[in-house]
Amino acid sequence: MSENTRTEIGEIGGEFGLIDRISTFASKQNASSVFGIGDDAAVIEKNDKEFTLVSTDMLLEGIHFDLAYVPLKHLGYKCIAVNASDIAAMNGIPEQVTVSIAISNRFSVEAIEELYQGIQLACNQYKVDLVGGDTTSSISGLMISVTVIGKVNKEAIVYRHTAKEGDVVCVTGDLGGAFLGLTVLQREKEAFKVDKKMEPQLDEREYVIQRQLKPEARLDVIHEMIAKKIVPTAMIDVSDGLASELFHICTKSNVGVTIFDEYIPKSEETKQTAFDFGVDPTTCALNGGEDYELLFTVDKSKVEVMQEFYDVTVIGEIVALEKGMNLVTKAGNPYPLEAQGWNHFKKK
Amino acid sequence: MSENTRTEIGEIGGEFGLIDRISTFASKQNASSVFGIGDDAAVIEKNDKEFTLVSTDMLLEGIHFDLAYVPLKHLGYKCIAVNASDIAAMNGIPEQVTVSIAISNRFSVEAIEELYQGIQLACNQYKVDLVGGDTTSSISGLMISVTVIGKVNKEAIVYRHTAKEGDVVCVTGDLGGAFLGLTVLQREKEAFKVDKKMEPQLDEREYVIQRQLKPEARLDVIHEMIAKKIVPTAMIDVSDGLASELFHICTKSNVGVTIFDEYIPKSEETKQTAFDFGVDPTTCALNGGEDYELLFTVDKSKVEVMQEFYDVTVIGEIVALEKGMNLVTKAGNPYPLEAQGWNHFKKK
Repeated sequence: MSENTRTEIGEIGGEFGLIDRISTFASKQNASSVFGIGDDAAVIEKNDKEFTLVSTDMLLEGIHFDLAYVPLKHLGYKCIAVNASDIAAMNGIPEQVTVSIAISNRFSVEAIEELYQGIQLACNQYKVDLVGGDTTSSISGLMISVTVIGKVNKEAIVYRHTAKEGDVVCVTGDLGGAFLGLTVLQREKEAFKVDKKMEPQLDEREYVIQRQLKPEARLDVIHEMIAKKIVPTAMIDVSDGLASELFHICTKSNVGVTIFDEYIPKSEETKQTAFDFGVDPTTCALNGGEDYELLFTVDKSKVEVMQEFYDVTVIGEIVALEKGMNLVTKAGNPYPLEAQGWNHFKKK
Repeated sequence: MSENTRTEIGEIGGEFGLIDRISTFASKQNASSVFGIGDDAAVIEKNDKEFTLVSTDMLLEGIHFDLAYVPLKHLGYKCIAVNASDIAAMNGIPEQVTVSIAISNRFSVEAIEELYQGIQLACNQYKVDLVGGDTTSSISGLMISVTVIGKVNKEAIVYRHTAKEGDVVCVTGDLGGAFLGLTVLQREKEAFKVDKKMEPQLDEREYVIQRQLKPEARLDVIHEMIAKKIVPTAMIDVSDGLASELFHICTKSNVGVTIFDEYIPKSEETKQTAFDFGVDPTTCALNGGEDYELLFTVDKSKVEVMQEFYDVTVIGEIVALEKGMNLVTKAGNPYPLEAQGWNHFKKK
């Protein structure tokens, strides 16, 4: 590579900056390409009633997972779940996946079968079919690339850029647990390095560890919304943390947001684990990531229907752009939100 | 990973054996999943007239490409072309691609832009839209995963498993060049290691080098077939070498094949380069791979129409299974073909 100037990826703002640069190479030559880069999934014309949704994720050993504490079966499950979650975030239903793997000769056939047992479990859980992929050898470790194909009724598709002032902000499940699960697993790994006879102390952390190792795509909520005829005005899944996802919805929709700390759902175990580690559970919810819950906005006329949902919490409202993005603390003070989502390129 | 038995991937026949194992995890829970693992692309219900086709490929630095002699722009072009070729091999037209990349901090923003310039060139060439992807950091080198989405009229879809006795076997373009191009580039790299002042001697090898660095998906032939109302009985693209692809068509179609060495198309430069390197050009065509031409069978009633095609050669015929797979040498002797396609897992 001969170059006159050399700009580091960190200089343009890491992953999001790079995606902005890459977006300039996107094209729209075919009428069937309805929506491209910039949401949870690409949108393609399917038939009179439906769109096809396509989303893809790449997971690398040493970057996204550590096989010291992630069982291959869980990894297989998770790589399908996180992709199904991207289709859910468009209000769609996933139907097919392709899975490509690159493996070094460290992996036996049995190990690969463990991975695929997890993939199969998730495929059954989400009624998704494994229809293709690619296999190759790698020089270093395991790499997994998953593409998921789904469908959505044209009138029900939900983007990130369509939230409007006055909408209420909702989130499914609870937040912050996946990050704390990772923290627990990393601590156990370090302790094991010191004392190889150590028995892992994980019993009291079962929930947060499961949140990290076996997240679920919230297709149950998508089906509930279809049944209750609720179409969100905007939606995204929580992969990088609540703050980062709110930032995406607000910047793309040209609005601000106010959320209330006291309403952000956190499990008891999340709060207890955060306390034990001396971290703030709200910070874990805002910046931890990997919870794969759905964050969405609905018209304020729907707020009572939303309260009938089994596992949805109203956490705030969409406000005018000028009001900015704020978290209101339990003491009632507004605190400006910053998008501090997990940035792969910062880790260097 | 704790395991009682450990089977090496090499023990089950490398990549193809692994794909067979993985295929047992494939599922078909959705009516929209028409055809899964085992062809160039998965087939998904789209609308009354058409199917959606999906194919995916993973390319790794150090396994699939060497940046010592592959310019990033060419690499970007090639990763789109080889995926478009998979859609062509189903008699389809590609329309969208997603591109995921994992990059180490060795790569500058300018380098990534070079890669995407090549991707954009190929997207324009094949009228394909870049609609999504994923970006992440990597610990070691560059990894690219491409998924292509295409369409095909239901009555025009062509699989591998539907060749029948009496069909004629056709191939587009010429074969063996891409492998010899790689051989030339590898030799130059070794020579450069010895003498850093060396000027590469590539002028007389322009065609074979281009075959390696910038292969084309033969969508021109697909469009010509649509115009001439030819629907092949079976088709595959030549990624691993003619012998390997014939093996796929024959085993899946339960037939044998006879091809004639004198008819296998090879360019003059391919023959000359093979001569200079002391290798047999037919062996390069049979086992070299990466030519990305189309290998297909058509009903024998179509043989005269096929001869009107600009860039298609009839190389043999499909015979009964019992007759096996044979190459007839120029001297008229049958020689049993073996599938010796490029096996990533053999390289270790």
